[in-house]
Amino acid sequence: MSKVLIFGHQNPDTDAIGAALAFAHLQKELGVDAEAVALGTPNEETEYALNQFGLIAPRVVEKVAGETQDVMLVDHNEFQQSVSDIEEVNILAVVDHHRIANFQTANPLYYRAEPVGCTSTIVLKLYKENNVTVPKEIAGMMLSAIVSDTLLFKSPTSTEEDMKAAKELAAIADVDLESYGLEMLKAGTNLSTKTEAELLDLDAKSFPMGDKTIRVAQVNTVDLAEVFARQEALEAAMIVENTKNKYDLFVLLVTNILNSDSEILIAGEPKEKVEVAFNTKLENNRAFLPGVVSRKKQVVPQLTEAFEK
Amino acid sequence: MSKVLIFGHQNPDTDAIGAALAFAHLQKELGVDAEAVALGTPNEETEYALNQFGLIAPRVVEKVAGETQDVMLVDHNEFQQSVSDIEEVNILAVVDHHRIANFQTANPLYYRAEPVGCTSTIVLKLYKENNVTVPKEIAGMMLSAIVSDTLLFKSPTSTEEDMKAAKELAAIADVDLESYGLEMLKAGTNLSTKTEAELLDLDAKSFPMGDKTIRVAQVNTVDLAEVFARQEALEAAMIVENTKNKYDLFVLLVTNILNSDSEILIAGEPKEKVEVAFNTKLENNRAFLPGVVSRKKQVVPQLTEAFEK
Repeated sequence: MSKVLIFGHQNPDTDAIGAALAFAHLQKELGVDAEAVALGTPNEETEYALNQFGLIAPRVVEKVAGETQDVMLVDHNEFQQSVSDIEEVNILAVVDHHRIANFQTANPLYYRAEPVGCTSTIVLKLYKENNVTVPKEIAGMMLSAIVSDTLLFKSPTSTEEDMKAAKELAAIADVDLESYGLEMLKAGTNLSTKTEAELLDLDAKSFPMGDKTIRVAQVNTVDLAEVFARQEALEAAMIVENTKNKYDLFVLLVTNILNSDSEILIAGEPKEKVEVAFNTKLENNRAFLPGVVSRKKQVVPQLTEAFEK
Repeated sequence: MSKVLIFGHQNPDTDAIGAALAFAHLQKELGVDAEAVALGTPNEETEYALNQFGLIAPRVVEKVAGETQDVMLVDHNEFQQSVSDIEEVNILAVVDHHRIANFQTANPLYYRAEPVGCTSTIVLKLYKENNVTVPKEIAGMMLSAIVSDTLLFKSPTSTEEDMKAAKELAAIADVDLESYGLEMLKAGTNLSTKTEAELLDLDAKSFPMGDKTIRVAQVNTVDLAEVFARQEALEAAMIVENTKNKYDLFVLLVTNILNSDSEILIAGEPKEKVEVAFNTKLENNRAFLPGVVSRKKQVVPQLTEAFEK
């Protein structure tokens, strides 16, 4: 077996990088020649977490088939969110917490998905099932991933298991869960230094829905007004992205992590499907979505249903 | 939540029925209102096992959406092998040991696949992870499923884990693994009472490969010559099936469970892909494949590669 590369999705967030580091460490302890890599550089939140626990970011790769035949995926499965040459390699394992779509293999594999808030919560189970100890710095990254994905347990995707795992990992990492978690989330909301294009790419995923391709980006903030002050420039950048990448519709989900609400801004067509999905009226291409914080649970299934009707 | 129906693939084999019964019992112990059903009647091998352990066959269903919104799949994932209205219901969980293909969900789910020889081996792990005791009769069905899928551990799909699980289950079921296993396998080789159409349907699955649809049926025997004495009638029946169901190619894998070899008989086109897949020459639409006993590991990947080149 060649070296096994382990990675999360494109535009990696803290779970994509944290779960890759954690699952690669576990595989190495189990005797696999594994390396965590990433399909992009860490965002500011992830950098904050890596620095906090003295870890360096995984090497960024654009393709993998040139250096290995065997890969393991964490925190994603859909090929359009994965490495560009994913269809040329053999997928040995997947650990994930998303829907399954646009994914297939020629051979049986290890696939572990659970409907919990964070991949790292599942990875912690795998450490236990294999009787491997979680090192302090890895525990810190896994904890950061859970805080990030669940927005400190405020997201409807968050489960009892995520909370329990985070508490356990906080003890190993020797940090105060609440205060560390809020500082880390805030570190990810510094949007002022970013161009509109960078902001749209921070945490964005593409989804085929019906015969359309929808791009759904999410940014976290502590002040919605600060983001919407840039609405005109953001819309222009979304239209550029749509044209360049053949997206039919771009949905930007701006989430207030303190109030646990979001406002969406959209560009492209068909806009009326968005209104159907969220049972709302768009005004000035915007709609406020009270209580919505989860792309996975409160945005993608609703859009999918509207588009596939 | 409505009642949860749990089922294996169409043309159920002993694992499709055994794993459904076992996983449904586990779910019930965990408080889920679950019922094992089946997408067809048991074959003779499965009937032997059910009788042996005093169990009745699961109710046969053709559709599920009329009675529930929630299902769990065992021993398969590909929609064309599942219930006909699978896309109308919500898949809560999958436990399987096959490749993943032609499968998708709108929501996150529990998905547990491992590259072992039998779904029931994974289900036994789930009993342990949930601290649920396996009842004697359920242990007997799970054991039968492992014997069936691994051909008493002679298949290359068989792993150490399958062997270990079978020994443990044989102790609970209070049977001698070797002698019970061989009797059960032999019970499934009584082909003389079956019409050609029945024989082709005993254990058959469809696979999209490239732009073709390939049907791969497998029958077990203790005497290849007995089956090939019916070659002409079998070929005629395969052509009828191809026409009726728009299969491009029908591959019948006749496996000698005593010698662990197979001979294939094919009907349809393109035949040359079969020759490429198995690096052989067809003579009289037949080829002997020494050491081949596993459709999943020694037939489907090879055909897939030949068709997708």
